[in-house]
Amino acid sequence: MVDTDEFVEEKVAEIREEIGDAQAVIALSGGVDSSTAAALAYEAVGDQLTPVYVDTGLMRKGETDEIRETFAYMDSLRIVDAKDRFLDALAGVTDPEEKRHVIGEQFIREFETVAEETGADYLVQGTIYPDRIESEGTIKSHHNVGGLPEVVDFEGIVEPMRDLYKDEVREVARALDLEEIIAERMPFPGPGLAVRILGEVTEEKLEVAREATHVVEDELEEYDPWQAFAAVLGKATGVKGDNRVHGHVVSVRSVESRDGMTARAQEIDWETLQRIQSRITGQNDNVSRVVYDVTHKPPATIEYE
Amino acid sequence: MVDTDEFVEEKVAEIREEIGDAQAVIALSGGVDSSTAAALAYEAVGDQLTPVYVDTGLMRKGETDEIRETFAYMDSLRIVDAKDRFLDALAGVTDPEEKRHVIGEQFIREFETVAEETGADYLVQGTIYPDRIESEGTIKSHHNVGGLPEVVDFEGIVEPMRDLYKDEVREVARALDLEEIIAERMPFPGPGLAVRILGEVTEEKLEVAREATHVVEDELEEYDPWQAFAAVLGKATGVKGDNRVHGHVVSVRSVESRDGMTARAQEIDWETLQRIQSRITGQNDNVSRVVYDVTHKPPATIEYE
Repeated sequence: MVDTDEFVEEKVAEIREEIGDAQAVIALSGGVDSSTAAALAYEAVGDQLTPVYVDTGLMRKGETDEIRETFAYMDSLRIVDAKDRFLDALAGVTDPEEKRHVIGEQFIREFETVAEETGADYLVQGTIYPDRIESEGTIKSHHNVGGLPEVVDFEGIVEPMRDLYKDEVREVARALDLEEIIAERMPFPGPGLAVRILGEVTEEKLEVAREATHVVEDELEEYDPWQAFAAVLGKATGVKGDNRVHGHVVSVRSVESRDGMTARAQEIDWETLQRIQSRITGQNDNVSRVVYDVTHKPPATIEYE
Repeated sequence: MVDTDEFVEEKVAEIREEIGDAQAVIALSGGVDSSTAAALAYEAVGDQLTPVYVDTGLMRKGETDEIRETFAYMDSLRIVDAKDRFLDALAGVTDPEEKRHVIGEQFIREFETVAEETGADYLVQGTIYPDRIESEGTIKSHHNVGGLPEVVDFEGIVEPMRDLYKDEVREVARALDLEEIIAERMPFPGPGLAVRILGEVTEEKLEVAREATHVVEDELEEYDPWQAFAAVLGKATGVKGDNRVHGHVVSVRSVESRDGMTARAQEIDWETLQRIQSRITGQNDNVSRVVYDVTHKPPATIEYE
């Protein structure tokens, strides 16, 4: 990418020409990619674009409210409250692939409903270069919620950022005056907190993952990680007061990376790890243990599933 | 305890008087407590004592061989190979309490068989002071494999170390010329590696726990931990070569403690953690991730179940 402003101008013109007078939709996840693509397309066609934010209940703390505020300038924004339907669909599902599949299916169902209502002919997507590379190999099959084009019959797919790397997307986001919280936002997986919970997804585990991730983001801000979050691994014994408890094990992950394709676990000082441990076990009676993930990618992935 | 040699002399005399010409048995786990109690009682009554070592298959790497060598001087030593029977009994068991129960039951069955053969009237046990305190409260119900006295009908229970703390037991072990490997040995739970495996115990997970614990003991020796080991937590994604894998998450635990009743997670330098991570993920294709447990006791326990 040569120049950010030039890129924006060029893409806005391209999108305007391609969509014309038709209606378009985009699935807005709140991540930097889809947010930037939505802002770009909205700049081009205004309320002909319906950005659809599906509140899956798998989001980070306060995320839906942030989305609502950040994109308040788009009159056509649609926020779908699908929390209960996702939890119902995920009940009893423990296999990671099936989990992703269930989430993907439910997402399509929610999105499709809105897309049909708007009569959209075009689908805008925030696909970036590493997504395309990785989905060509066997490494990452469904990192983002995909499969939309196969289900809804669109006239065209618009992917304005398909040749960009993540850091370039962030520049574009800044050029579009997206709030810093979006421009600087850490990558967040399509299936949300569900891939940070080993085994069945329940409301209790989601609460643990959500609150613990909030602590991690807060405490590790100064380390400027590519991604930092908390995952829920399983249950192990602990002692709270005089009682033996069987509580969740929370794993803290913080990595540095250029593009997410490889990553290094960050060295965090012991005092900070202890503060994180103490806050996470203190805020939730169901947590007995906090561990720090010391594995690079490879051999681990950044996310847990 | 005033003087170690005096203590040994006094206890040997007491045991000799109590057991007299009768037969006695002791379950020898390889841990410092039961090893010391066995040596003490053997000193008192010689081959009237049958030390029974049940190889549950849940032991650390090389442990059975070490036991065989260390106690080779006891002609009456019995080593029972029960590996397959324990794995069979544990198949499909995921609940931690049930797991302990199954192991306890199987252990009793194995021990009872030998006890009956020997016609033993006395049971010697390595119970120490913190065991008694903790089993009075609700904190620790079955840390050691217990319940023997209720099943086999012994005339008397001999617990020569019931008033000692762990460090005092180590002094006694040294006074009894037990090899350093026993005297300095880290505490090891009665149910063995099974309580370091969340969920079902399988041969594959045992192999991971065993090999990873061997690495941890090797790398952390210089930190002189109270206990250092590896646990198997669940499965998460990773990348090995060009393949996406679903591998075990190994948790490394290393704590300092005076008596095991409270403990502090040790601060381990980053380079060492990275060497451990690299060795553990490198030695086993089924491991995708290594985490370091940063939680003290309380709120966590030292062991995982």
